[in-house]
Amino acid sequence: MKKLTDLQALINEAVDKLSFPETPADLYEPISYILALGGKRLRPALLLMACDLFGGDVEGAVQPALAIEVFHNFTLMHDDIMDKAPLRRGQTTVHEKWNANVAILSGDAMMVESNKLMMKVQDAILRRVMDVFNETATGVCEGQQIDMSFEKRQNVSIDEYLTMIRLKTAVLLGGTLKIGAIIGGATSADAQLLYNFGVNLGVAFQLQDDILDVYGDPGKFGKQVGGDIISNKKTYLLIKALELAKDAQADELSNWLNNQTFDAAEKVTAVTGIYSQLQIRQYAEQAMQTYAEQAFGALDSINLPEERKQHLRFFADHLLVREH
Amino acid sequence: MKKLTDLQALINEAVDKLSFPETPADLYEPISYILALGGKRLRPALLLMACDLFGGDVEGAVQPALAIEVFHNFTLMHDDIMDKAPLRRGQTTVHEKWNANVAILSGDAMMVESNKLMMKVQDAILRRVMDVFNETATGVCEGQQIDMSFEKRQNVSIDEYLTMIRLKTAVLLGGTLKIGAIIGGATSADAQLLYNFGVNLGVAFQLQDDILDVYGDPGKFGKQVGGDIISNKKTYLLIKALELAKDAQADELSNWLNNQTFDAAEKVTAVTGIYSQLQIRQYAEQAMQTYAEQAFGALDSINLPEERKQHLRFFADHLLVREH
Repeated sequence: MKKLTDLQALINEAVDKLSFPETPADLYEPISYILALGGKRLRPALLLMACDLFGGDVEGAVQPALAIEVFHNFTLMHDDIMDKAPLRRGQTTVHEKWNANVAILSGDAMMVESNKLMMKVQDAILRRVMDVFNETATGVCEGQQIDMSFEKRQNVSIDEYLTMIRLKTAVLLGGTLKIGAIIGGATSADAQLLYNFGVNLGVAFQLQDDILDVYGDPGKFGKQVGGDIISNKKTYLLIKALELAKDAQADELSNWLNNQTFDAAEKVTAVTGIYSQLQIRQYAEQAMQTYAEQAFGALDSINLPEERKQHLRFFADHLLVREH
Repeated sequence: MKKLTDLQALINEAVDKLSFPETPADLYEPISYILALGGKRLRPALLLMACDLFGGDVEGAVQPALAIEVFHNFTLMHDDIMDKAPLRRGQTTVHEKWNANVAILSGDAMMVESNKLMMKVQDAILRRVMDVFNETATGVCEGQQIDMSFEKRQNVSIDEYLTMIRLKTAVLLGGTLKIGAIIGGATSADAQLLYNFGVNLGVAFQLQDDILDVYGDPGKFGKQVGGDIISNKKTYLLIKALELAKDAQADELSNWLNNQTFDAAEKVTAVTGIYSQLQIRQYAEQAMQTYAEQAFGALDSINLPEERKQHLRFFADHLLVREH
């Protein structure tokens, strides 16, 4: 049984060895560039961990694990165009460093590369693996589209929000783990349980992220605390507050959302005050807890001795109890 | 043995039946929209013809044929963003009707859909088919990138131009035919011959298109005659002329290329005059002939009775002897 850090190191080494043709340079250099920006390589490492969980050959799963990393970075390259993001991991984004056309086309080529890497599994599981991969890719596209549509919409329900975060980020975690399980020789039932573990964990993690953005320790949380409030981002907290606020409270919240000029600290204090009155933090933590329990419930149900699951459980525990 | 028009009708029917989820609407409506714009459905029909050539089950090849049509339209959707094209088949392009973000993301989703459709082949040939499909997709991305790079470059060689048209359009024809052949039960050797037929035919067709743009009958050629000359498009003819022109001729050609204001008819006449002096038409027709002969040579070598090849030969003859 291998530890997450060892698996991340294995992936880092394999990413460094990934090579693409030299020409056309404007097609392949952006791919090498975005992959070299780093990141924690959590998803591919988790694919290996899922494979290892069922006693599979971890080395043999490295190429499909890279497929997940390449796919994920393809979505980042295209998302950054759509979001007009200037930076990715502190470095200039591809569409800024080159241009939008290069980022569109290199992203397309990356998706093809990810398909090729994912094909590097045994014939006996090829269709199962590719079916999961394709379904995952569809989910990620749907999630991104729903997320973009939220910016233009006034009313978003909690259910719609949960669907969005599930598709946009959680299904990739679930799909990654399921593919690792299939490569590792898991039964269909166990592979599906690991998928459920991943999806629920992913949703719980996103909800925790929403909570930490408001209630995190500024010294330990990696982002500006209150950033979501300042930018009117539709998070679980804001959507729940809009659902529950009545009369004067609703007016106050609406004013803060519509004000074009405001003092940022004042807005964060005021909106957080409304959240407190409405017990929004408790609602959010309850929802997060529910998803976390479903995740751990799925992990518990997997038909393996507990000691085999320790690394995955440790990872999930660690993910959901970040310092805040 | 089925005729091309029958196969096109079969594809049209299948395209009409293709359905996508209702939501997110901005992800799936653009896919239905671009597919409904029509087109001759030549590529998918040729996949069926290749399958039929080897006695395969044409009905069973319809889904992979649709994969080619969906893939082709995905590339058009993204190309139109890159080219800032306002119209596609006389209708508003997706990025104009919706916006560029929608066109990027719907294109991505289309590529996933095309992969899913291509997976609908028997397990025994799944890897071979997907390998050809992925290689084809890589080629198309490379070709588009090389084509974009030509706009910024002064000197493009004939070899580079031939590589570009081969990748951008001809490998898709070759890949389509090869996939059809594999589904139809062809040997590897015959499938490869059909690939060679398609690629060479595709290059010959592009060269013919370059020739017709200058020498076609205005009443029969679908586009404005001389359009390539007016827009300084780097075609086989222009590249060859730049290679061969010397002294005063080279200066005159260069002046026409650099003039920002000019009378269009005058420019077409002058540049065509230079082409005549340099016998550019003959060079282009010779090159086209060489590719056509390679295409027909590959078709001849396929290990089947001549009468089975008649529809494919008729198609190629017809493609390369358009009215002009």
